[in-house]
Amino acid sequence: MAIVTLTTDWGVRDFFAGAVKGKLLSAIPGLDIIDITHHVEPHNIAEAAFILRHAYPEFPEGSIHIVSLRATASRESPHVAIKLDGHYFIGTDNGLLGLLSDNKPEEIVEIDIPQDSNYFVFPGRDIFVKSAIHLAQDKSIKELGFNMQGLQDKSSWSASVDKDPETGNDRISGRVIHVDNYGNCLTNIKDTTFQQMKKNRSFRIYLPATTISQTKLYDAYDEVDEGKILVLMSSTGFLQIAINQGRANRLLGLEAYDSSINVEFINS
Amino acid sequence: MAIVTLTTDWGVRDFFAGAVKGKLLSAIPGLDIIDITHHVEPHNIAEAAFILRHAYPEFPEGSIHIVSLRATASRESPHVAIKLDGHYFIGTDNGLLGLLSDNKPEEIVEIDIPQDSNYFVFPGRDIFVKSAIHLAQDKSIKELGFNMQGLQDKSSWSASVDKDPETGNDRISGRVIHVDNYGNCLTNIKDTTFQQMKKNRSFRIYLPATTISQTKLYDAYDEVDEGKILVLMSSTGFLQIAINQGRANRLLGLEAYDSSINVEFINS
Amino acid sequence: MAIVTLTTDWGVRDFFAGAVKGKLLSAIPGLDIIDITHHVEPHNIAEAAFILRHAYPEFPEGSIHIVSLRATASRESPHVAIKLDGHYFIGTDNGLLGLLSDNKPEEIVEIDIPQDSNYFVFPGRDIFVKSAIHLAQDKSIKELGFNMQGLQDKSSWSASVDKDPETGNDRISGRVIHVDNYGNCLTNIKDTTFQQMKKNRSFRIYLPATTISQTKLYDAYDEVDEGKILVLMSSTGFLQIAINQGRANRLLGLEAYDSSINVEFINS
Repeated sequence: MAIVTLTTDWGVRDFFAGAVKGKLLSAIPGLDIIDITHHVEPHNIAEAAFILRHAYPEFPEGSIHIVSLRATASRESPHVAIKLDGHYFIGTDNGLLGLLSDNKPEEIVEIDIPQDSNYFVFPGRDIFVKSAIHLAQDKSIKELGFNMQGLQDKSSWSASVDKDPETGNDRISGRVIHVDNYGNCLTNIKDTTFQQMKKNRSFRIYLPATTISQTKLYDAYDEVDEGKILVLMSSTGFLQIAINQGRANRLLGLEAYDSSINVEFINS
Repeated sequence: MAIVTLTTDWGVRDFFAGAVKGKLLSAIPGLDIIDITHHVEPHNIAEAAFILRHAYPEFPEGSIHIVSLRATASRESPHVAIKLDGHYFIGTDNGLLGLLSDNKPEEIVEIDIPQDSNYFVFPGRDIFVKSAIHLAQDKSIKELGFNMQGLQDKSSWSASVDKDPETGNDRISGRVIHVDNYGNCLTNIKDTTFQQMKKNRSFRIYLPATTISQTKLYDAYDEVDEGKILVLMSSTGFLQIAINQGRANRLLGLEAYDSSINVEFINS
Repeated sequence: MAIVTLTTDWGVRDFFAGAVKGKLLSAIPGLDIIDITHHVEPHNIAEAAFILRHAYPEFPEGSIHIVSLRATASRESPHVAIKLDGHYFIGTDNGLLGLLSDNKPEEIVEIDIPQDSNYFVFPGRDIFVKSAIHLAQDKSIKELGFNMQGLQDKSSWSASVDKDPETGNDRISGRVIHVDNYGNCLTNIKDTTFQQMKKNRSFRIYLPATTISQTKLYDAYDEVDEGKILVLMSSTGFLQIAINQGRANRLLGLEAYDSSINVEFINS
């Protein structure tokens, strides 16, 4: 039995999620439907992609992920179904889907199915659910429409890498991409990139209002004293700025997308 | 296997929803329980009815919908179970259930079952769940209590229709009844009513702070330029006031229930 | 089939809950996963315990309850799995679990299993889920680690009981421990304690800003006029301060943990 997940900016004080679940269960009794989140900031594609990117790999292959955000289709942004890392994703080609994985999709299909309603403002129910039912019934993704060559690629998570022109030190230029419920700040700097560049050097991390010096990345919040800033490995594979027992976003003035994070490795 | 849905004003920072789901699953292992919403503004019957009205028709017939809002029973507002459009609804006869559909219930039963707890402030758990289990076990709704003739009918969604005494133009007097997560404003004016009255005439829509002139209803947000106001068909069958890529409620000062929306059809 | 519930302070605008559900469903297809809440105030152990305490008894025995709050393990606060009242609880021994029931656990096991990830900041996914899968597969709780003698017991729900030194009147000293979505204020004073002490006496309840005199506890909000304060039995077994049709927390200035509630029984 397939699993269908939902990632949207609908909020939960509306009929959207209920209607979609009702339609799914009417077609496939007993289907497992999991809310990833309905609380993405309206139209915030990067936030939605960040959340789903770190949730979907835990689901079994073959799971079907509906993503409804800036969902209206246009010529440049059609409705699409893709197969990626063994999972199916259904949504709109608006730049979001390209942020879900570092791998390329195995299939990209522009959805071309008739919708059952005369209304055109709720593709989540009228197009995405119908496509999800199709896939959940083990039918081919190819039957949903036309083959496409690639997805829109508006932006990327990647931090950039260069050298300081004066000192010759290696640098990584990144930014905060997510603040969690505890105020911890996730960056777009991958720990693998960081470790490859670091070698045996010490490093400094430049935040907008302060600079952090560490000799290694920490593994856990309580490796520093209460109230101290630390840079640690998060479970996402990206570096995290945190304060042990404190809210780093507030105390350091960090906000998702606005705050730059620069790393410099010190040649000894 | 039956489906049970929940529409409440409990919020999600409490034990209410968890307790109700536990009790349902204890009686019927594997039951599908779907949250429509727990985020209705406390005691706001019209908001709850609006949300459930547009969600329940997507569920299969025979689904059981628990509605817990102003749930305390009194002589005038007993606990009731009704069958409506092939669905079951369990709640309190406080005016909410009459707003769910334009059709009349097929059955109305005043619930008269003993509750299992000595406490009287949580009918959602102690009366509604027990009634839902009864129905989910395919037992007759009639066994839940006494037949009733009709429901309380405190208000209705309907907009009113008349003629301007001076010009003789046809008019619809409505109001905003829901603001969604994007700031789009749903009215209580049905698109079918609108289309029947419009014929070939143009129309004006009078909002508290501005007037909109269109020659037809739009189908999609992007049929007008970014930042422009439009009146379009929503997926609910009611007209919607929106701004392409903007928050209509903020920019036009519209609030649910407070804001009047008047349509005038212009005789040429 | 087992049921797994989740009680956390993760919020719902993140990937945590989605990742945990994906991992559970990957291991056990069709598993029932129920959110008790993800909206506990970050790190607020007492609030989480209050919510779960009143939800878990409604679930069938054998249900598995994951509790993720202040979840990082330390020597003093290891990860634990306990059996209590026939239910399983998985979390961190940080004082929370001792607040869930007046009974003692039947089993307490310090979890000692290898985690599958190299990251140490998400035990909810990497330790708790793995333990829950173990239990859901009907394997023994003992296999999860080492037997422990007792849990941390940092605080308790109990109100204290004494006599007024001047009048000799019996007194209960309690406090507000929860404010629900309607503004009703739950106290830590059990109705059974209250009834045993009351006998035939009248009583006064001293709140920070006012004093309530009643001759008996009420059963329902509408036993007093609209706008009147009342003390009634809640469905939790604890006394509740409420205002019929009003928000007691705002009108009486009551806050969870800050507001003392003292009862005095008047010897006639």
